Amino acid sequence: MTEIEAPPHPFDAAITLTPAAGGALRGRTRPEYANMVGPFGGVTAATLVQAVQQHPDRLGDPLSLTVNYTAPIADGDFDITARAVRTNRTNQHWLLELEQDGVVATTATAVFGTRRDTWSDTEPDMPSVPSPDAVPARGLSDFIAWSHNYEMRFVEGGIPAQDAGEHPDSTTTLWVRDTPSRPLDFPALTSLCDVFYPRVFLRRGRYVPAGTVSLTVYFHADAAEIAAQGDGHILGTARAHRLSRGYFDQTAQLWGRDGTLLATTHQWVYFKD
Amino acid sequence: MTEIEAPPHPFDAAITLTPAAGGALRGRTRPEYANMVGPFGGVTAATLVQAVQQHPDRLGDPLSLTVNYTAPIADGDFDITARAVRTNRTNQHWLLELEQDGVVATTATAVFGTRRDTWSDTEPDMPSVPSPDAVPARGLSDFIAWSHNYEMRFVEGGIPAQDAGEHPDSTTTLWVRDTPSRPLDFPALTSLCDVFYPRVFLRRGRYVPAGTVSLTVYFHADAAEIAAQGDGHILGTARAHRLSRGYFDQTAQLWGRDGTLLATTHQWVYFKD
Repeated sequence: MTEIEAPPHPFDAAITLTPAAGGALRGRTRPEYANMVGPFGGVTAATLVQAVQQHPDRLGDPLSLTVNYTAPIADGDFDITARAVRTNRTNQHWLLELEQDGVVATTATAVFGTRRDTWSDTEPDMPSVPSPDAVPARGLSDFIAWSHNYEMRFVEGGIPAQDAGEHPDSTTTLWVRDTPSRPLDFPALTSLCDVFYPRVFLRRGRYVPAGTVSLTVYFHADAAEIAAQGDGHILGTARAHRLSRGYFDQTAQLWGRDGTLLATTHQWVYFKD
Repeated sequence: MTEIEAPPHPFDAAITLTPAAGGALRGRTRPEYANMVGPFGGVTAATLVQAVQQHPDRLGDPLSLTVNYTAPIADGDFDITARAVRTNRTNQHWLLELEQDGVVATTATAVFGTRRDTWSDTEPDMPSVPSPDAVPARGLSDFIAWSHNYEMRFVEGGIPAQDAGEHPDSTTTLWVRDTPSRPLDFPALTSLCDVFYPRVFLRRGRYVPAGTVSLTVYFHADAAEIAAQGDGHILGTARAHRLSRGYFDQTAQLWGRDGTLLATTHQWVYFKD
C-alpha cells in the first residue's frame, strides 16, 4: 500500500520558500490568506521570519522584527532576499526585501540571537477573561479570506456590526488560534501579531479604508515557551493611543494560556475617514 | 563691525551631515553626546532622520522610524547611505545604513509622508503631574556625557541611588528638554524618544550592563504641532512589559505640555544580570 501524505497546513503552504536565482527565496501568495488587497500582512511578516529561519547563516531565534509594507503585493510569485548585515557573538542583524517584478513591495529588519538565563519578571497581569470555550467563535467577515484560517473568540471589541455607532475606546481582546489548529512556532506567532483588525473600525463603528504601514514584533518568549503552547488558544489584546491626520498606532500583547507574555507588538496604520 | 555668529547648538552640531563619496553623508560623533560606549542612541536615531530630511528626494515628514544598533560606533567619522526604496503618492519608504570602516554599525527603515485631515482622537489621558517648575532638575550621572545636554525633572522613577534596592515596577515619568533649550523639531523629538535610562536599572535598583538593540518611533504629531512646543518641556513616561533571558521591551509616550501626544516609542533592550 502506498502511504498517503497529508497535505501541509495552509499556513505552512503560505510561508513555503524555495531557492531562486541570485540567492533569493521564492514564495507565492495563497488564496487562503488573501486580504482585501494582496495577502494578509501577518503572513507576509511570517514569511520574512521563515526566510531567516531557513537561512544557513542564521544565529539563534527571532528577537525583534520590523516589517514595512511599501507597495501592494499582487497575487502570484515574490522573491525575498535576506542579508545578514552584522553577526555579533550573541545576536545577528538582518535586512530583508520582498520584490515582485523589480518593485520592492516589503522591507524588513530582524534581530535574531541566543538567550541566556537572567533575572526575569513580567509586569502587567494577563487580562482576566473567561476561558476560550465560554466565548463564542465569530469570524471577521466572509469577504476577508485570511480570517477564515483563524478561530477568533472576542472577549471585548469584536468587529462592529453594521451601524454599530462610535465606540469610546479601541480595545479588542480575543482568544485566537489557527484553524485547523497548528502547533505555535515563531512564524505563526508573528502572523498572530497582525490578527487585530484596524482599531479605527471599532472607534468609528464601521469599515473605513485602512492598512498597516509598519509592523514591529518583540519576541519575549523563547522557543521552549512557544512550543509549550502547543495548538492552544492565545489571548491577544490590542489598542490605539492616537488616531490623527490619516494615521494611528496600534499596540498589542499576546499571552499564552499559561500566563506567558509571548510577544508585544506595535504597528503604524494609515486610514481615510 | 563684524557680526559674530553664535556657535550652533550642540545637538545641531551632533546631527550635521555633509556630502561624502558615493552619495553618502558624512557625520562625526561629538563628545557632548557620548554614552558609556559610543554615542547616545537617541542622537544616532536623530541623525538618521536628519539624513532623510536633507535628502533632495524626500517626501513629507517622518511618520515611523526603526533603528537597529548592529555594532558599537567608535568615536570619529561615520557615513550614512539613505535609499528611497519606494515612493508612493502620499508616503515614501527608506532604508538607511550607517557605516564605519566598512562595518555596518546601524541600520534603519523610515516611513515619511504627507498627512491629511481626518477624524481624530487621543485615547489615553496625559499623566496628571506637577508642572516642571515644581519638580527639581536632576541628572542621570556625571559619567554619562549625553545626559548633561538634557534637563531632566523626574516625577517618578528617577535613576536609582546606590543601594536603592529593587523597585516593583518599571515606570519612569519625567519632564525633559534640551539644555541649552532648543526649539523642538523631528530630530530632537526622535532623540528624546531614547532619553529613558534602561528600565532594568529601576527594577534592580542598580546599574547593570544594558543597551538598546532596536528602537521604533511613531510620529503622531505633525510639523505644526511640534513647532508649537517651542523650547518647552516635554513629558515622557516609559515602562517595560517583560524582562526575561537577557532582553526586555521598553515602551513610552511623549506628550507636549499642551496635552498633544507627540510620539509613542518602543525599544528592545539587552541586559546582563
